[in-house]
Amino acid sequence: MNNFEFYCPTRVIFGKGTIAELSKHIDKSKKILMTYGGGSIKKNGVYEQVKKALEGYDVLEFGGIEPNPKYETLMKAVEIVKKENVDFLLAVGGGSTLDGTKFIAAASKYFGEKDAYEYFMVEGNVAVDAVPLADVITLPATGSEMNNGGVISRLSTNEKLPFHADCVYPQFSIIDPQVTFSLPTKQTINGIVDTFVHVMEQYCTYEVNSPLQDYWALGILKTLVEEAPKVIANPQDYEARANIFWCATCGLNYWISLGVPQDWATHMIGHELTAFYGVDHGQSLAIIHPRLLKNQKISKSKKLAKLAREVFGINEPVDLKAADIAISEIEKFFNSIGMRTKLSDYDINAQEAAEKIRDRFKTRNVAFGEKGNITADVAYDIVRES
Amino acid sequence: MNNFEFYCPTRVIFGKGTIAELSKHIDKSKKILMTYGGGSIKKNGVYEQVKKALEGYDVLEFGGIEPNPKYETLMKAVEIVKKENVDFLLAVGGGSTLDGTKFIAAASKYFGEKDAYEYFMVEGNVAVDAVPLADVITLPATGSEMNNGGVISRLSTNEKLPFHADCVYPQFSIIDPQVTFSLPTKQTINGIVDTFVHVMEQYCTYEVNSPLQDYWALGILKTLVEEAPKVIANPQDYEARANIFWCATCGLNYWISLGVPQDWATHMIGHELTAFYGVDHGQSLAIIHPRLLKNQKISKSKKLAKLAREVFGINEPVDLKAADIAISEIEKFFNSIGMRTKLSDYDINAQEAAEKIRDRFKTRNVAFGEKGNITADVAYDIVRES
Repeated sequence: MNNFEFYCPTRVIFGKGTIAELSKHIDKSKKILMTYGGGSIKKNGVYEQVKKALEGYDVLEFGGIEPNPKYETLMKAVEIVKKENVDFLLAVGGGSTLDGTKFIAAASKYFGEKDAYEYFMVEGNVAVDAVPLADVITLPATGSEMNNGGVISRLSTNEKLPFHADCVYPQFSIIDPQVTFSLPTKQTINGIVDTFVHVMEQYCTYEVNSPLQDYWALGILKTLVEEAPKVIANPQDYEARANIFWCATCGLNYWISLGVPQDWATHMIGHELTAFYGVDHGQSLAIIHPRLLKNQKISKSKKLAKLAREVFGINEPVDLKAADIAISEIEKFFNSIGMRTKLSDYDINAQEAAEKIRDRFKTRNVAFGEKGNITADVAYDIVRES
Repeated sequence: MNNFEFYCPTRVIFGKGTIAELSKHIDKSKKILMTYGGGSIKKNGVYEQVKKALEGYDVLEFGGIEPNPKYETLMKAVEIVKKENVDFLLAVGGGSTLDGTKFIAAASKYFGEKDAYEYFMVEGNVAVDAVPLADVITLPATGSEMNNGGVISRLSTNEKLPFHADCVYPQFSIIDPQVTFSLPTKQTINGIVDTFVHVMEQYCTYEVNSPLQDYWALGILKTLVEEAPKVIANPQDYEARANIFWCATCGLNYWISLGVPQDWATHMIGHELTAFYGVDHGQSLAIIHPRLLKNQKISKSKKLAKLAREVFGINEPVDLKAADIAISEIEKFFNSIGMRTKLSDYDINAQEAAEKIRDRFKTRNVAFGEKGNITADVAYDIVRES
């Protein structure tokens, strides 16, 4: 395996009834800004649980962080943080709320002259200071609750870009799988696909002799394939919900990526689909991923074949044939839990989307994938086939 | 799965040539006490590498921490820390050196009237403050490099007891698998068995619907079984050494134990064998573990059967039969890498050992195992069969 560095100081508090423990983990002297999204936490009881757990604290609120959180929205929260001297951020919601809150945390401590989006996202400067933050995470999907990254969109330029910084690791993340009982099915499905593709981006590259990381990655995929049908059939199945949530967290807490090459091309192309057409993040991955795997089948054949055998129990000794089966099994799995996987399912013209994405990648002069071979033209081929 | 809390702030720096990065991670102002064991680091070049990396720092040294580190020895280091105002401890060596250094770190900040061993180990008070510490770990075995625990012996009372405290997490751990090229075969073997049994203590209990944790545990065991013969055959095989080291670290960094019941009875009985007869820690586990599994076969049969199928590829549908095969395969694996697994191999009288251990457990009024059913009398049966 390759050399690596690992660091994750987030305390994870996982299980039934854990929201009530909030006050154990935040100093009473803190002035808290509680951030959330479109208000679903007010319908499912999480808002009430958090407010009750924070009785006696000085708590301000900032709601309305949208899916694919927008820079323009987040900067309004930054104003509040600066004006009100907020010294603790508590994100209550899904990955978008938490990603947005990480950006708020860093942008609140940024006093440069440039636009914060330009500075952190476009130029890629790494934040070195941030307002301390934590979260009550309500959606198993992005893994944001145990990593130092986020993805932020900018409306004015139709962009969606990622950032990372150690100073935005949540101090703690509270995960009570019970809060997912009331999730709309669509979000449950999006989260499962998101997790699945996160793992693929880190596992499905080329061999570097890292058996342990491979077993873990395959373990997450197997668990998803086994547990997903259970939560679709019975949304109140606590055990299955807990397993799915822990898969989502471990899908992107870097444990499976240590010392191995990574891909992330599906995400980079998918982000553009979301930026141009507004499809959900999970949907964009489900559309692109099978086509990207097909396009890169030869170079990924060993890992795909192992996946076919370990996750789907396929008894096919020839790697390239097993790889084909793996790709079709993955798409079947997505479809089986109700995720549609073609651009046409979303009324998007594949030719037009392919051209738009190719042109954008050409302008930025970027190439993706573990071998840097997903150029603008390769992305064009992948999207056209989707 | 059960509720759990996870926290591990240690930064892991893993790979070839990483010792040279030491100065990136320790502030130049620190007064360092470098701790080590019997001097093997002076033969294998690690001492030189560390000293070179720390040029320009104020570094004191404390050597001679023995395997199964002794309270009596460690208190001499505590005196140095207090007298010289040391404010950073750097353990360079194996798990014993690091465990001992964790104790030094906590005992140096303990100003109570009681004997520190009595206070932390016997009474079980949790340390709340410690001198910051880090390590260059040279032996894949205990996992101490990524956890908050240690095991310390006291000569005067023939005791060997564990302790845990968040304040003794290493700030960072440097793992360069190359330093294990020159390990004596016996230590390589001890470390592999220690890691294997660590995983078993956390995996091999009863089902609580935790598929992900199970896949990880089984992944470590599979990797050990696959990679161990390679390092025995070719001690200079970097890839195999790296995989074994990462297994050792992950075998006890709590990742596989989250939300599941744990056993640790093999360790508790093994510690007594070491305390009474001085056998190596790894040897004590190899002797006790197969007999403990046999004794507890019925209650552990589901996990043992899964292990037989996943790790050893045994195609036996009846759980109890598969469990029997698993136990014998584990002992065969230990033997195949050169580890002897009977008390008689070490000239220890089983009847005498069984009586001594039973009497000690009776005096302490303790019982171990995931169900608390390994009483003094059950331990007697297990040791007599060993």
